[in-house]
Order: sequence, then structure tokens, then C-alpha cells
Amino acid sequence: MTSTTTDASAPSWLPDEQATDAHRALRAWVREYKDLAAAARLAGWDQQTKLPPKGQAGRGRTLGALSAVLHEKATSPELDRLISAVEDVDPDGPEARVMRRGFEQSTKLPADLVREIAEASSAGYVAWDQARELDDFPTFQPHLERLLELSRRTAELYGYETEAYDALHDLYEEGSRAADLEPMFEALREPTNRLLDQQPEPDTSILERSWDVKGQEIFGIEVVTRMGFDFEAGRLDETVHPFCSGIGQFDTRLTTRYDEHWLPCSLFGTIHEAGHGIYDQSFDRLGLPATLGDAPGLGMHESQSRGYENVIGRSRPFWEHWFPRLQEVFPEATKGVTLDEFVKQVNTSKRSFIRVEADELSYNLHLAVRFELERAMINGDLSVKDLPEAWNAGFEKWFGLRPPSNREGVLQDVHWSGGSFGYFPTYTLGNVYAAQFTEVARRDIPNWDDLLRAGEYGPIVAWFDEHVYRHGEAFTGRQLVERITGGPVDVQPLVRYLESRFGQG
Amino acid sequence: MTSTTTDASAPSWLPDEQATDAHRALRAWVREYKDLAAAARLAGWDQQTKLPPKGQAGRGRTLGALSAVLHEKATSPELDRLISAVEDVDPDGPEARVMRRGFEQSTKLPADLVREIAEASSAGYVAWDQARELDDFPTFQPHLERLLELSRRTAELYGYETEAYDALHDLYEEGSRAADLEPMFEALREPTNRLLDQQPEPDTSILERSWDVKGQEIFGIEVVTRMGFDFEAGRLDETVHPFCSGIGQFDTRLTTRYDEHWLPCSLFGTIHEAGHGIYDQSFDRLGLPATLGDAPGLGMHESQSRGYENVIGRSRPFWEHWFPRLQEVFPEATKGVTLDEFVKQVNTSKRSFIRVEADELSYNLHLAVRFELERAMINGDLSVKDLPEAWNAGFEKWFGLRPPSNREGVLQDVHWSGGSFGYFPTYTLGNVYAAQFTEVARRDIPNWDDLLRAGEYGPIVAWFDEHVYRHGEAFTGRQLVERITGGPVDVQPLVRYLESRFGQG
Repeated sequence: MTSTTTDASAPSWLPDEQATDAHRALRAWVREYKDLAAAARLAGWDQQTKLPPKGQAGRGRTLGALSAVLHEKATSPELDRLISAVEDVDPDGPEARVMRRGFEQSTKLPADLVREIAEASSAGYVAWDQARELDDFPTFQPHLERLLELSRRTAELYGYETEAYDALHDLYEEGSRAADLEPMFEALREPTNRLLDQQPEPDTSILERSWDVKGQEIFGIEVVTRMGFDFEAGRLDETVHPFCSGIGQFDTRLTTRYDEHWLPCSLFGTIHEAGHGIYDQSFDRLGLPATLGDAPGLGMHESQSRGYENVIGRSRPFWEHWFPRLQEVFPEATKGVTLDEFVKQVNTSKRSFIRVEADELSYNLHLAVRFELERAMINGDLSVKDLPEAWNAGFEKWFGLRPPSNREGVLQDVHWSGGSFGYFPTYTLGNVYAAQFTEVARRDIPNWDDLLRAGEYGPIVAWFDEHVYRHGEAFTGRQLVERITGGPVDVQPLVRYLESRFGQG
Repeated sequence: MTSTTTDASAPSWLPDEQATDAHRALRAWVREYKDLAAAARLAGWDQQTKLPPKGQAGRGRTLGALSAVLHEKATSPELDRLISAVEDVDPDGPEARVMRRGFEQSTKLPADLVREIAEASSAGYVAWDQARELDDFPTFQPHLERLLELSRRTAELYGYETEAYDALHDLYEEGSRAADLEPMFEALREPTNRLLDQQPEPDTSILERSWDVKGQEIFGIEVVTRMGFDFEAGRLDETVHPFCSGIGQFDTRLTTRYDEHWLPCSLFGTIHEAGHGIYDQSFDRLGLPATLGDAPGLGMHESQSRGYENVIGRSRPFWEHWFPRLQEVFPEATKGVTLDEFVKQVNTSKRSFIRVEADELSYNLHLAVRFELERAMINGDLSVKDLPEAWNAGFEKWFGLRPPSNREGVLQDVHWSGGSFGYFPTYTLGNVYAAQFTEVARRDIPNWDDLLRAGEYGPIVAWFDEHVYRHGEAFTGRQLVERITGGPVDVQPLVRYLESRFGQG
């Protein structure tokens, strides 16, 4: 593995003053486009945090009207010309690649198909919600069949080299392929199950005590502010399904959910979203051009959210700093609790059926189940009617358990109901990237643990600024991994990390 | 004065089923336009309630981008054709009038002038804010001169019959004229000053006690919910300068400001905005077509906000119902306070310099000062450099007092800094309309006071549904007054109302 210093210091894009008129014109166009897109993002954020219930139908139409306006701009001959001008002067530059890829994604699907997908997703979501409620797969089946068919048509229109699944997965993680994901997941199976077998009887009784909700909010804001989330350029609000949304320039919004009797819900949820948020805020903070001011993919984004949440936020040195403050804010809930007990409980791991409630160790196997199934469906090797049985068999294969119901099995996740196939593996890619980056960063920052013990995150954020954030979309996730580690995407650092965190059980 | 029953029951617009294809096509177009405009309204609401400080510049660009998209639609040949089609089949219908008026307002100003006004307003606001801070009129003077010049050009482009001022005032209150406003204000001068002279030494010590802010929020929400504001189709949030915004269909948002040591700030502020909100929510509740689902002008809107706030919300019967609940929510702040003392303090009146802090009785004279000055400026009879002295002379004329500084005089209001001339009189028109409507409504609802004592507002809202709300923009404010009272706009009911409320002092 080579040293990363030389590569990492090379600039990946030209500042405005050194760029050509073609670059500047394209950047100005994208800035304006993103300013308009901010209205749609705000309307989406508001829908999930503030919108009064009777306003839902109108908001749906508002989002539809905005997306029509934005789609027209994103597929306009004007944008095509602006991109071509940059391609002429700088064909190998990152902006030509990123913008042409985006333009083709927007133009390759006919408007009819885009509308069909939107309608099928909307109906699919309603049917899924009902099917899950009733634990009745047949209610969802025809909708999933329709969404699968539309996704397969989409894959054909985007094109692929070896299998249809890659065309869809590539939308979320450029250059990542099913043929690479298969061995990645396989490499996690044995070590994860071995570690799971070694875990002690789960005990999370401390986390289930009464944790004052206002205190949770205060503590969460304090933690993520210290970590580097800038509340002068962001917010934290409540929602049902937490997310982070980069609304517009210097406006990044976190959401969370408070459960008085389950501290991790808001605590680690807020840190997770702040990981996304710190990444998102970096593009404005570091002055990236609008053309490149985004993460290159969902895996990279998850590497930050899961990195801050788990690698940092569940580590013992992190809590050496924060536990005394937790005791101050929650004198009752922390009564008689030692640091060791607390750290142990926030790292409890066990096999379970529901992905969104799963712990860090078992989490990846949930994605393995989904990856295998959606790959088979998209590639034509599995029909929707056989999916529930295939789910249960897959769960048995990866966990050695069979779900007691479809509700706790195939019906638990929203993704497929919205036509999102190829998305799930990006969660595990996030864990893989985070582990790879952390190994290098800990070599570059030998006092990593001492920094956490002191509640000092500046040097860690600075490392990510230098190696990841300042490039925006200029490199793909895979290219960033190679620049930083000197090698390809590699699951072994994640295996080593899980061994070190869960191996003493 | 004729009975209103026959007129008032006549429908003012055709339901979709009975309307022509031309009506339905225009209504569908406007619905879509308003759905898109909802994004701009949301972005404006968010800017004043939620937006993180560093996001201001980006939000300004987002609003600019949206307004360009909306302006293009509002001036499109497509809309012109749709309006013409309705004019062909229903030339005297309300939709032909309302939509043609709006289209002409959008198209009469050249795009260059619209942009110049936007820029001058933006710069004017900054300069005004600074000038007020420094109590330095010259800082603001050149900006106000520029804004005045642009407004006078605007007035010429819109056109008028007798004086330029009417062209601008008509934008806010269709059909209202300076020649009618002059005697209206004059009729208020003597009675108001006479009543002011009769008021006892002001005492608001109860209202300045410590009123728990969370309690203020709970109590305010309880009051306006009971009055008829629907929180399933609306919200209440905090802001610096409170307002009500109809965002989109079934989404109307109130804002307020809490001051622990000044209860009226949030209490009557929230009721005031809820008056706007109840009016705004009525258009969706009563199923008005998108073409007509709005108030016909600012005066009408103020008649509701000021009616709920003052006519109802500061009346003794109202507090006979609410005072016991106030004592429950604020046991400390209300200790030893009688209902009579409380009602007396919320109706305290005195001469003062600042309009936004003025009480119900003295309020109209503040508008009289502004009306005379802005009329003279727009009509070319007063130059900006002479404005501060003219302000002080005007204040002397109406109140018998001279402001101690420009900050407490000519620099206190934001309106002119945004190029809004002709707006101020609509506040007093609101009071005039409210008093006229209340006289008729109290005749139609003889148990009005008993309803307030019981905290029952249903029959009052139903009366406004029948006489005002269900017509939307189908009639102008002045036409509604004539339909309801059988006579013209008349200041005497307001004089009688003020006499009855403040005459016992």
C-alpha cells in the first residue's frame, strides 16, 4: 500500500479564476439550476417535517409541477451545449464526466416512462404500506411486478455490460458491479456469524430507561455541533423516518425521531444524519463549483454517516469524553451506570429480523439477503410470486433463521415499493469504505483515540476535507478508495474492524 | 338600508359541473399555477421561520428563480387565450374580471422595470434598516427617492382617472380611491382625539408580568382552534415579524412572536393572524374554484384579522369565557387579577409614536398620517427631502404631538422601503369594513354576546361563510360592503364602535 500524500494533494478541479469561460458558464447554469431545485428539496423536507395533514395532496401536485420544470431544464439543448463546450476544452476533466453522465441519465428515459414509474411508485407505496399492515404479500405482488417490469425496461435503456442489475446499481454507485458485490458479501458471512455466535446475552436495559426527550435534543445538538455540523448553515427537526437533506447553498437539514424509552433512536440517529450533513456542508464550506458540489454516490455518503455513527460514535474513547456530560444532562437515567456498561449496551449485537433496527455487526447480512434477491429479480432469475419463499430461504442462508411472517420479512422495507432496485448494497459499501478510510486515517492521525477522548474532531474532519470532501464528485467512490488506500475496494478492513469491536464478547 | 337576505343567497360563481369547458380549463390552469406558486410561498415562509442564517443568499436566488418561472407563466399567451375563452362565454362573470385584471397587472410592467423595482426594494430595505438603526434619514433618502420614482412610473403604466396615487392603491384594494379615503380619515380625527382625551392613565402592569412562553403557545393555539382555525390544514410557528401565509391548498400558516413580559404580543398577534388564516382556509373548505379562491383585497383581509383580534378578541363577553382558562394556564401571572381589570388592561388606549405598538383606538390616526404623506409624494406634491419635517407636522396635526426622533417617526415602517405606496390605508379600511359587517352580523345574530360568553364561534363563522368567504374574489371589498349593508363604505359604524368601546373611560 503506497503513501497517499502525493496523490491526495493534487487538485481535482480548477478554481473559477483559472477555469475557462466554458467552465464558468456551465457552473453558473448549474448554480441556477440547483437554486431552483432547492425549492423542490425544501418542499420535500417540509412534507416530512412540517406539512399539515390535509396539505398532502396539494404538496404532491407542487412537487410534480416543480419536477416538470426541473426536468425540462435538465434535458434542455442549452445544457447539452454548455456541457459540450466544456468537453471541447477539457474532455478528461471531472465536470465533463459528471455533467454528461447526469444529462444522459435525464434524457435516456422517455417522458412517458418517467411518468409511468412515478405513478407506479406512488401506487406501489400505498399498496406496500397496506400489505405490510395486513401482513399480506398478495396485496403488494401485482404492484411489485409492475415496478420490476418498469425497472427492467429502465435498465435496458441505460444499458450495461454483463447484467441488467448493474445498470440500476450504477445509478447509486458509479462503477460498482454485482460481480464485485457478490464476493464482498460472501466474505462477510462467516466472520459475522462467528462473531454473532460469540456475543453475550443482549442487555439494553439502561437504554430503555426514561430519557427526557428535551434532554435528548439538547445532548444530540451538542454532540453533532462539536463534531462539526454547522447550525448556522443547517437545522435539526423531528420526523417519522429520519433523513438528511441538502436543501440549497449553506442550508443542510437533519431530522431525527425521539423515543423516550429508546435512547439510541435519536442519539445515534442524529449522529448518523449529521455524518451525512457534515459531508454535505463541506461542499459550500470548501467552495466547490456547483457542477461538482455533491457526493459521488450513496456508498460514499453512507461511509460518512455510518463512520460518524458507528466507528466514532459507538467507540469507547468517544464516550470517555461524552459520558460525564450525559450524566449531567440525564442524572436520573444514568444513575448507577458505569461508562463500561453504557459502552457495552450501545454495542449490543444479535441476530434479528428487521434491518432498520439491526446493530452494526449484523447489519450487512440484511443487505446481502436483499442484494441476492433483487439481483435475481432484475436479471430474470426470480419471479415476484416466488419472492416471499426466496426471502425466507435467503434469510436462513445468511442468518440461520426464518422470519415468522412476511411483515418481519419481505414486506419490511420501503425501497422496492418505490421502484428502487440496486440501492441496498450501498449501505454495506458505506461500511466497507468507512473501514478502509479509517485504517488509513488512523495511520495518518496516530493520536486518533486521544482526540476522541478530548472531544476534538477538527483533525479528523480536516483529514476528510483533504482526502474526500474537497473533491466533491470529481472522483467516483471507487476512485477515491484507490487514491486514499492505494488499492481497490476491499472488504477486509471492515472484517478486521468488526473483529476488533465485537471480538471480545 | 335594505335586507340582505335575497342578495346574499345568490351564487356568485358556477360550480364545475355547471360551468363551461372554458371555465374548467381556466380553473385547471390556475390550480396548476397556484400549486407551483406554493413552492415560492413555502420558500418565503421558511425564510422567515426556519432558514439557517447562512442560507439567506441562496434563498434569495431561489426566490428569484421561482419568480421568473411564475412570471413567465402569468404573462403567457396560453393564459391570455384561456381568459379570452371565458370572456367569450361569460363576459360579465367574476372570473373574466379577476383573471383579466391579474393578467394586465402582470403584463403592463416591462420586465426591466420589474427587475429595477426588485433591486431597488432590496437595496432600499437594507438602507432603511440601517437608517432606522442610526436614526439617520439621509442614509435612506436616495433610496426612497429612487423607489418613489419607480412607483410613479408604475402608476403611469397602470393608469388612473384622477390622481396617480389611485393606480397604486387600487393594486391593494380594487376600486378604492384617495378621494374617498380623505373624508374617511377626516371623520375619524375628532372622535378619536376626543376619546383619547377621555382615557384614564394607562396601566398595563398585569400584561407585563411573567407569562410563561410555553403557556402562551398552548393558550393561543387553544383559542384560535376554538375560533375556527383548522390545524389539520395549518400551523403556527415563531418569527420576528408575524404574518399569515396561505401556502397552498389546505396549507395555511400562522406565525407569532412570544414576549414573556408582554402577553398581548403573542396573544392578540396570534388571534390577528388566525383571523387572516380562518379567511384563507375558507376558500378550500368551501370548495372555491382556484380562479376565485382568495380575498378581493387587503382591506377585506384586515377586516377579518382585526375583527377577530379586536371586535371579538378584546370584548368583555369573549373574556367571560376565556378568563377562567387563562387563570388555569397561568395561575401565577393571574393571581389576584379580576376579569374586569384584565379586560380593562387589554383595552388600554393612549397616544403613542409607533404604529405597530398602537392600540385599537389610536391606530387609524397613524394610517392617516401615512396616507396624506404618501399621497402627496406620489402625486408630486411633496419631495422626499422634505418628508421628515412633513411627517412631524402631520403627526402634530393628527395627534397633537411631535415625534422625538425620525426613528420614532418617518423611519419606523418597512413599507416604503419595499416600494409599497398605497398599502397603508387598507389597515383602516379593514377596521371600517369590520365595524360595518359587525353591525349587520349582530342584527342577524341577536345572541352574539351570549355566543362569545359560551366560547361558541360557529354561527359567527357561518355568517361570514355565507356573506363573505364563499364569494372569494367574486366581488370587490366595496361590492361586498354594498351587498351586506345595502349601502356604501361608511366610516360611521367604526366611529360608533369606538365610542361604545372607549367611551366609558
